[in-house]
Amino acid sequence: MTDPADRGLLSPAWASPALAGATGDDAIIAAMLELEASWAETLEAAGLVEAGSGAAVRDAVKQGTTAGTYDGARLAEASQGGGNPVIPLVKTLRETTPTPGKAAVHKGLTSQDVLDSALMLTAKRAIAGILADLSPAAEALARLADRYRTTPQVARTLTQHSLPSSFGLKAANWLQGVAHAESRLSSLAFPVQCGGAAGTNASLVALGGEPAALAADWAQRSGLETAVAPWQSFRGPVTDLGHALAAVTTAAGHVANDVMLLARPEFGELGEPLAEGRGGSSAMPQKQNPALSVLIRSAALQAPAQVAQLEIAAALSEDERAGGAWHSEWPALRELLRLAGGAAASLRELVEGLRVFPEAMRRNLELSGPLLVSERLMLELSGVAEGGRAGVQKAVDATLAAAANGAGTSEQACILRKELRAVVRSEAAGEDFDARLDELLDPAGYQGDAAGIVDRILKTYEETAAERRHDPSRRHVRRV
Amino acid sequence: MTDPADRGLLSPAWASPALAGATGDDAIIAAMLELEASWAETLEAAGLVEAGSGAAVRDAVKQGTTAGTYDGARLAEASQGGGNPVIPLVKTLRETTPTPGKAAVHKGLTSQDVLDSALMLTAKRAIAGILADLSPAAEALARLADRYRTTPQVARTLTQHSLPSSFGLKAANWLQGVAHAESRLSSLAFPVQCGGAAGTNASLVALGGEPAALAADWAQRSGLETAVAPWQSFRGPVTDLGHALAAVTTAAGHVANDVMLLARPEFGELGEPLAEGRGGSSAMPQKQNPALSVLIRSAALQAPAQVAQLEIAAALSEDERAGGAWHSEWPALRELLRLAGGAAASLRELVEGLRVFPEAMRRNLELSGPLLVSERLMLELSGVAEGGRAGVQKAVDATLAAAANGAGTSEQACILRKELRAVVRSEAAGEDFDARLDELLDPAGYQGDAAGIVDRILKTYEETAAERRHDPSRRHVRRV
Amino acid sequence: MTDPADRGLLSPAWASPALAGATGDDAIIAAMLELEASWAETLEAAGLVEAGSGAAVRDAVKQGTTAGTYDGARLAEASQGGGNPVIPLVKTLRETTPTPGKAAVHKGLTSQDVLDSALMLTAKRAIAGILADLSPAAEALARLADRYRTTPQVARTLTQHSLPSSFGLKAANWLQGVAHAESRLSSLAFPVQCGGAAGTNASLVALGGEPAALAADWAQRSGLETAVAPWQSFRGPVTDLGHALAAVTTAAGHVANDVMLLARPEFGELGEPLAEGRGGSSAMPQKQNPALSVLIRSAALQAPAQVAQLEIAAALSEDERAGGAWHSEWPALRELLRLAGGAAASLRELVEGLRVFPEAMRRNLELSGPLLVSERLMLELSGVAEGGRAGVQKAVDATLAAAANGAGTSEQACILRKELRAVVRSEAAGEDFDARLDELLDPAGYQGDAAGIVDRILKTYEETAAERRHDPSRRHVRRV
Amino acid sequence: MTDPADRGLLSPAWASPALAGATGDDAIIAAMLELEASWAETLEAAGLVEAGSGAAVRDAVKQGTTAGTYDGARLAEASQGGGNPVIPLVKTLRETTPTPGKAAVHKGLTSQDVLDSALMLTAKRAIAGILADLSPAAEALARLADRYRTTPQVARTLTQHSLPSSFGLKAANWLQGVAHAESRLSSLAFPVQCGGAAGTNASLVALGGEPAALAADWAQRSGLETAVAPWQSFRGPVTDLGHALAAVTTAAGHVANDVMLLARPEFGELGEPLAEGRGGSSAMPQKQNPALSVLIRSAALQAPAQVAQLEIAAALSEDERAGGAWHSEWPALRELLRLAGGAAASLRELVEGLRVFPEAMRRNLELSGPLLVSERLMLELSGVAEGGRAGVQKAVDATLAAAANGAGTSEQACILRKELRAVVRSEAAGEDFDARLDELLDPAGYQGDAAGIVDRILKTYEETAAERRHDPSRRHVRRV
Repeated sequence: MTDPADRGLLSPAWASPALAGATGDDAIIAAMLELEASWAETLEAAGLVEAGSGAAVRDAVKQGTTAGTYDGARLAEASQGGGNPVIPLVKTLRETTPTPGKAAVHKGLTSQDVLDSALMLTAKRAIAGILADLSPAAEALARLADRYRTTPQVARTLTQHSLPSSFGLKAANWLQGVAHAESRLSSLAFPVQCGGAAGTNASLVALGGEPAALAADWAQRSGLETAVAPWQSFRGPVTDLGHALAAVTTAAGHVANDVMLLARPEFGELGEPLAEGRGGSSAMPQKQNPALSVLIRSAALQAPAQVAQLEIAAALSEDERAGGAWHSEWPALRELLRLAGGAAASLRELVEGLRVFPEAMRRNLELSGPLLVSERLMLELSGVAEGGRAGVQKAVDATLAAAANGAGTSEQACILRKELRAVVRSEAAGEDFDARLDELLDPAGYQGDAAGIVDRILKTYEETAAERRHDPSRRHVRRV
Repeated sequence: MTDPADRGLLSPAWASPALAGATGDDAIIAAMLELEASWAETLEAAGLVEAGSGAAVRDAVKQGTTAGTYDGARLAEASQGGGNPVIPLVKTLRETTPTPGKAAVHKGLTSQDVLDSALMLTAKRAIAGILADLSPAAEALARLADRYRTTPQVARTLTQHSLPSSFGLKAANWLQGVAHAESRLSSLAFPVQCGGAAGTNASLVALGGEPAALAADWAQRSGLETAVAPWQSFRGPVTDLGHALAAVTTAAGHVANDVMLLARPEFGELGEPLAEGRGGSSAMPQKQNPALSVLIRSAALQAPAQVAQLEIAAALSEDERAGGAWHSEWPALRELLRLAGGAAASLRELVEGLRVFPEAMRRNLELSGPLLVSERLMLELSGVAEGGRAGVQKAVDATLAAAANGAGTSEQACILRKELRAVVRSEAAGEDFDARLDELLDPAGYQGDAAGIVDRILKTYEETAAERRHDPSRRHVRRV
Repeated sequence: MTDPADRGLLSPAWASPALAGATGDDAIIAAMLELEASWAETLEAAGLVEAGSGAAVRDAVKQGTTAGTYDGARLAEASQGGGNPVIPLVKTLRETTPTPGKAAVHKGLTSQDVLDSALMLTAKRAIAGILADLSPAAEALARLADRYRTTPQVARTLTQHSLPSSFGLKAANWLQGVAHAESRLSSLAFPVQCGGAAGTNASLVALGGEPAALAADWAQRSGLETAVAPWQSFRGPVTDLGHALAAVTTAAGHVANDVMLLARPEFGELGEPLAEGRGGSSAMPQKQNPALSVLIRSAALQAPAQVAQLEIAAALSEDERAGGAWHSEWPALRELLRLAGGAAASLRELVEGLRVFPEAMRRNLELSGPLLVSERLMLELSGVAEGGRAGVQKAVDATLAAAANGAGTSEQACILRKELRAVVRSEAAGEDFDARLDELLDPAGYQGDAAGIVDRILKTYEETAAERRHDPSRRHVRRV
Repeated sequence: MTDPADRGLLSPAWASPALAGATGDDAIIAAMLELEASWAETLEAAGLVEAGSGAAVRDAVKQGTTAGTYDGARLAEASQGGGNPVIPLVKTLRETTPTPGKAAVHKGLTSQDVLDSALMLTAKRAIAGILADLSPAAEALARLADRYRTTPQVARTLTQHSLPSSFGLKAANWLQGVAHAESRLSSLAFPVQCGGAAGTNASLVALGGEPAALAADWAQRSGLETAVAPWQSFRGPVTDLGHALAAVTTAAGHVANDVMLLARPEFGELGEPLAEGRGGSSAMPQKQNPALSVLIRSAALQAPAQVAQLEIAAALSEDERAGGAWHSEWPALRELLRLAGGAAASLRELVEGLRVFPEAMRRNLELSGPLLVSERLMLELSGVAEGGRAGVQKAVDATLAAAANGAGTSEQACILRKELRAVVRSEAAGEDFDARLDELLDPAGYQGDAAGIVDRILKTYEETAAERRHDPSRRHVRRV
C-alpha cells in the first residue's frame, strides 16, 4: 500500500522540516504524550493516584517514543474507529505503563481534553517559532523604511501612477501589517482544556479532586495557560488563533504582492535576494523567479479559507462536543500554523535581503511626465493664475492633449511650462518663476508627508516592540 | 426598469429597518456626507480655507439631504464609472455648495479617505447598536446560568448522552462565547483614513497644513479615532472588524444550534419565546418553528465566508490602493455588520424569553438509564469491588448486555444493582449499600463541578463587564 | 528534526492508507515519474530522440523508485527553491538516466506540464476509487428507498414535525444527492497539460515535432485525455474537479446529518452499523457514537472552503502561469480528493449497514398527536363542515388549546373527534364517520405521493446508471 | 427610520439597474407572484378548484403589483416572523383575491415551493441576460485571437519573461475560460420545486390531484423545467447554479487581471476602451484607471466565497427542510447572479473595445534581450556545437554574466553572437550563419505553435457555439 504521507510536496510554502516538523503528526503525538505524562504527575501531586504514577507514565512515554511505538500512520488509521487519535494513543500508553502508573493514565480526562490541549501546545510552540521569524522581518522592514524614507518612488493606485511617494513609506506600510500580526500573535492565549467526558469534571470530583486546581497545575506543568472554564463547546480560543495566524500570512502577502510586481522586468524596482537554488529555471537560465514571494503569496491565498473553516466549525458548535464540526477544526488549525510559519520564514529571508533599485524607481516615476504633479500645480498655482483653478486646468489640459497625441514626457514638460507661464500672472510669477517651475515639476519634491508618516509608523512600532520586550507578560493578557 | 433594491427580502436574519437602516446605502451616504462636512470644518479651523467654508459645506449637506439630492440608486449607478461612490457624491456636493465652501469641498482628500472613514463610522455606529443587544443577551444568559446552575440535564457529546450536567452550565458555556464577542467588539478601533491621493498627504502639505494634526481634528469632529498613519494598503482595521463581528454570529449560532435541537418535539427541553407572528406556519397550525434560532443560525452560517472575503482582500493588497481587492471589502463588511446585528437582536429576544423545561430535561436524562453513570461506578466502586475495575466492568457489561437485549431502563437498574451487590465486597458495602447505590445511580447527583464552573464563568464575566462599565476607555485600546 | 509528515492523524475522515495512499506524496511522485517516462516514449515514437531513450527513462524511473531515490521529504524541501517539486525530480531523473535517455528526459516540457498532468492522473485514479465506493452506496440507498417506501416516518421541517412521510422517501432524497455526485464525477475530463515553458510548445516545434500529436500520444500513453489546447492559465479543468468532488462530500454529508440526528437516543429511528472498534467510548462503555457519520460530516464541512480555494486560484489567473495562485491549487485539490474519498468510503459502510427502526419512527410520528394531520382535515372536511374551512379550524383550535393546556395526544384525539363531529354536517358525516375519522387521523395514511416520488427517483437513477454501464464513453463527454 | 435598501452603492461591480433590476427584491416578488398565479391556473386546469380561480388570482396579482401592494420593505420585515417572505406575500394575496380565486391561492403549496421556484425563475431570467453579454464577449475574444494570432508578445510565467508568444494566444486562452463558462451556464437546469409541506405532495393527493402532472403543468406555465422529484433537501440544482456562475466571474477575472497588468504605464500593451466617465480621477486628471477591469476583478474575488456558501448550505441539509442552511442560500445565490451579471457586462464592454498596442508588446518583448531565446539556442544549436549542450550553455552563461554586469540588451546580443560563433563548428555554421543567428535571435520568430493553438481553440469554440445555435435544446440536458 502506498504511503499516504504528505510531507509538503504540494505545499512548497511550508515544506521544510525545520518549519513543518513543529506541526507534523509526530509533533502532535509528542504534545499529546507530554500532556498525558504531565497529567499523571498532576494527579500524583494532588494525592489522587499512587505515588510513583507520574514517573511511571512519563517513563513509559519516553520509552515508547524512543521505541517508535507511537507510529503516526497506525494511530491515524486507528483513529477512524472512534474519530480521534487520542483513543488509540491512550490504549497503547496504558498497555505499556507498568503499575502503579497504569491506573493513572488519562484518569478523569476525555479525548477532547488531550487533543485540544495538545493542539494548543503545538500552536504555542509553533507560534514561538513564527515570532522568531516575524520579529526580525519587522526589524528589517523598519530598517528599509528608515533607509529609504525619502527615496522617490511613484505611488500607484488602481494600477496607475498616482503621485510621488517614497519607497520608505511603502516599507513602512508593509511594517504596519507585520507589526499588527506580531501584536495579534503576542496577545494570544493558549489555554488548557480540562473538562472530562461532559465538561463537568465529574470524574475528578468523584476522585476527590478540585478540578480548577488540577487544571491549573496541569497547565503549569505542560506550559499552557489556565482557562476560566472548559471551552469544549466555546471555540473562541481556536478562532482567535486563526485570526492571528491569518494576520501573519496577510501581512506577508502584502509584501509579496508588491515585490512580485516591482521585480518584473518592466519595473525592475526591487529584486529578491539572490541565493543559490532560489528561483532558477532549468529551461530558461536567464530567468530569475521571485520564488520567495511566490511561496508567500501562495500561503496568503490559502489562509483565508482556513480561517473561514475555523469560524464555521465554531459557529456549528452544538451539544457538549460537536460531531464533525470539532473534527473539522484540527486540519485547518494545523494548516494555518504551517502557512503562517512558512510565510514568516520566507518573509524574513525576503526582506532581510531585498534588493532595492532607486534608479529604476526614479525612472518609472518619470514615466508619467510632468502631469504626475498636476495636483500640486492646481494647489500651488491656482491662487496666482488668471482664471484661478480653471486657468491651471487649461494648462494641464493642453499638456494632456499633447500627451494623447504622442508627445513624450520632455515635450510635455515644455508645453506645460509654456502654458503655465501664459496663465500665471506676471507679478505672481516673479523673477525666479523658472526655478519655481523646476521645483514644482520635480516629482521627487512632491512627497508630501511621506517621511513624517514613516517616522510615526516607526515610532509606534518601536514603542510597542519595546513594551513587549520589557513586559513579556503582555504577551498573554487576554482572558479566555 | 425594475428597482434593484435589496431591502432584506432574502435575508430575514437582518431584515428589519431598525437593524438594517444603520447600514443601508442611505446610512453610508450620510456618513460620507458627515465626513465631507467635518473635513471642511477641519480645514477652516486650520486656516487652510476661507472662513465660512465649513458652515457652507455643512449647510449644503443638510439641504441636499433634505432635498433627497443624494439618491442611492443614482450614486450607485454613477459609481460604476470610477469604481466608487465618492466621485459622484463629491461632484454633487461641490456643485451644490456656494462659494466659499465650494473650494473647500473634499480639498486634499481622495475617495478612499472618505469611503474608508465612512465605513468605519458606519461600523462604529452599527456596533454600538449590536452591543446594545449583545450586552443584555449576555446578562440574560448569566441569569439563566445562575438560575439553572444545578438543574439536571444530560450532557451530549457527538450526539450521544455522555454524563449528567446542568442546564446552567450549558447557559454559562453560551455566555463564554457571547462575552468573548462582546470583548472583541469592545476592543475595536475605528480609525480615520486620511492619506490623500497617494497616502502621502501631499496636497495637505502643499496647502501648508500639518497632516497628522488635520487627521486628528477630522477624526475628533466625526467621531472616529486617530490612526498612527494612513492605512490604505494595510487593511488590519478592516480584518479586525471582521473577526470581531464573526465572533458575534458564532456565539449566537452556538446558542441557536442548541435551542433548535432541544426545542424539537422529541426533546422538548427548551422553547423559543412565544410571540405573535413568530414561527407560525399557515399550512400547519400546530407547528411552532424556532424562528429566532433559524434566523440566527442562518446568520452564523453566512459570516465565515464574509470573514474570508475580508481576509483575502487584505491578503491581495497591492500598490497604494488595490484595484478590485479594496472594492471587494465593502459589501463583505456591510454584510457582516448586518448579520451580526441581526444575530444579536434575535439572540437577545431568544434568551430573554427562553422557555426552559426542567422536567423534560430530567426525562431525557433518564433515557440512558443507569449506564449513564457507569463512569462514576467505575471510579467510586473499583476500590471496593472484587477484581477492582474489572469487577465493576463485569457488572456494567451485564447491564449493557441486558440493554442490548431490550431491557428497559428500570430493568437495567435492577440488574446493575444486583450485579454490583455481587461484586462489591460485603465489608465495603456496609449496611447502607442500598442507599449508597440510590445516590450513586441518581444522575442528578453526578454533575461534577458543573456548579463551580458556572460560578467561575459568571465571576469572570461580571468582572470584565464591570471593568468595562468603569473604564469606558478600555473600549478602544488597540493601536492600529 | 521532527518528521513533518501528515499521515492523517488530524483527519480521521480520510486517514486510512487504502484511501489516502492514492493521493499521498508518493502517489504524486509516481504519477510525475509515469508522465516523464511516457513522455520519453512519446518523443522516441515521434523520432525526436534517439532510439532506446524511452526504455532508458522508464527503466531509470523503475530503478529509482525501487531504490527509494525519490524521497518525498527531500523533494518537498528541494521544491522550495523553485517553488515546485518537478524541478528537483527532473534533476534526479536526468542524473540517473543513462545515455541516450538522459537527453530525452523532460525534453521540451515545463514543470507545469508535468505537475498539472500528474495531478490530473492522480485525480483520475482517485476518482475511480471514489466511484467504486459511491456507486455501491447509491445502490444501497436505492434498496433502502425501495424497502421502506411506505414505512411511516414524520417529515420534519425547520426541526419541527411537519406531516407524515416515509423513510423510503428520505432515502430516495439522499439518493438524489449521491446520484448527482456520481453523475458529476462521471462526466469529468482529465486532460493532459502540454504547453512547454510558455504555453506555445516552442521547443517541440524547434525539435521538429507536431505539438498536438505529441500531446495526444502522451495523453494516450499515460491514461489521460487530450485537451483542445494547453490550459496553463485557464483552470476550468481544475475547478470542474473541485465542484464534482464537493458534490460527493455534500451528498454524503446530507445523509450523515440525518443519521446523526435520528440515531440520537431521543429519536432512535436509525442506527449506524455495529462494528468492532467503531464509535465506542473508553470512558463511557454504554455510549455508541455515530462515528461514520461524524467522519462524513467533518469531510462535508471542510470541502466547501477547498472549493472556494480552487475558484479563487482560478480567478486570480494571470500571465501565462500565475505565481502563488497556481501553487495554492495543489493542496486544495488533493484535500478534496481525500475528503471525497473518505466520505464515499464511510458513506458506503454507513448505508450498506444502516439499522432502521420503523417502530421508533412510528412512535415519534405519533408524538405530535392528531394535529399532525390537521392539514388533511382542512382539505378533506372543509367541504362538509358547517362554516367550511373556518368550521374545521375551530375544531383544530380547540384541540390546540387543549394541547397547550397539557392534554396528551390521546386526549387531543378525543377532543378533536368530538369537535369535528360537532361541525361536520350530519348528512355528510354519514354512518361510517367514525371509521372515516380513524382513517383520516391515522398519520400513516397521509403520506401523499411519497411512494410515487420514491418510484420516480428510483426509475431515473436506474436509467442513468444503466446508460452509464452500457456506454462507458459517456463518462468523459465534456470537452475542455 | 433610515431606508435599509442596498441599491449597489458598495457594489459597483453590478450597480446598474439594468443589471441588478433582474435580481432585486421586486424581481423576486414578481417571480413569486407569477408562480402563485400560474399555480392557480394549474389547479383550475386540473379541475381541482373552481372555474375562474386562475384568472382571479392572476388578476389580483396584476392589480396588487400595479397598486404597489407588495412592498419589498414591508414583506422583508414581515418575513422575520416566519423566516421567509412567502408567508406575508401569500397572506396579502389571499386577502386581495376575490372568491372563487381566494380558495385557490397557494392551495397545496408550501413556502419552499414558491421561494425555490421563484429563485429558479429569477436565475433563469438573469442567466439569459448574462449569456446575452457573455456570448458577444466570447465572440469579441475570438476576433482578438484571430486578429492577433501572430502578434508577438512575451509570455510571462511567475511574473518573469518566459518565451515569446502571441497576443492572439493570450486572447484565445481568455476565450477558453469564457467558453467554458458559457457552456456551464448553457447546460444548467432550472427545475420547479413542488413538494408541499413535507415534500410528499400530501395535500395535492388529498385534493385528488396527480402531483407529478400538476408540477409539470406548473413548470410549463411559469417557464421552468420539470424535476424528477421535489428537491427540498437535495440542493444540487442550487450548487450547480453556483458553480456555473462562478465560472463566469472567474473567466472574466482572468481577463481583467491581465488587462490591469498590461495597461500599467510600465507595460502599455493594452488599454481599456476610452469612454466618457470611465476611469477618470478628479484629483489626477492625467490618470486613466482601468475601471472595467477593477469592477470585474472585484466580482471575481467575491464569487468564490459565495460558492462556498451555497456548498456549505447544501452540505448542512437536514430533515425535510433545513433551518438556517436553506435560508443562507438565498442571498448567496442572488449575489452570484449579480456578480456574474456585472462581470459579463463589463467584460463585454472591455473586450469589445480593448485597445491593443503591438509596438509596446514588441518593446517589452525585447527587454529581455537575446537570452529570452536561449531555450531555442540550446535546442537548435546543441547538435552543432563543440561540447554539445554544454557548449551552447557556455555561450549563454557568458552573456548572462555580461548582463549581470550591466550589459544592455544590444551588447548582450553581440556577446552571445560572438560566443556562439566560437562554439559552433564551422562546417555546421556554414556561410549564412549570421543570417541564421538573426533568425534564431529574433524573438518574434520563436512563437512555437502559438498560432496553431489559437486555431484549435477557435475551431472548438466555433463548433460548440454552432451546436448550441442549431440545437437550443442542448441548453438544458442535465437531469436533476
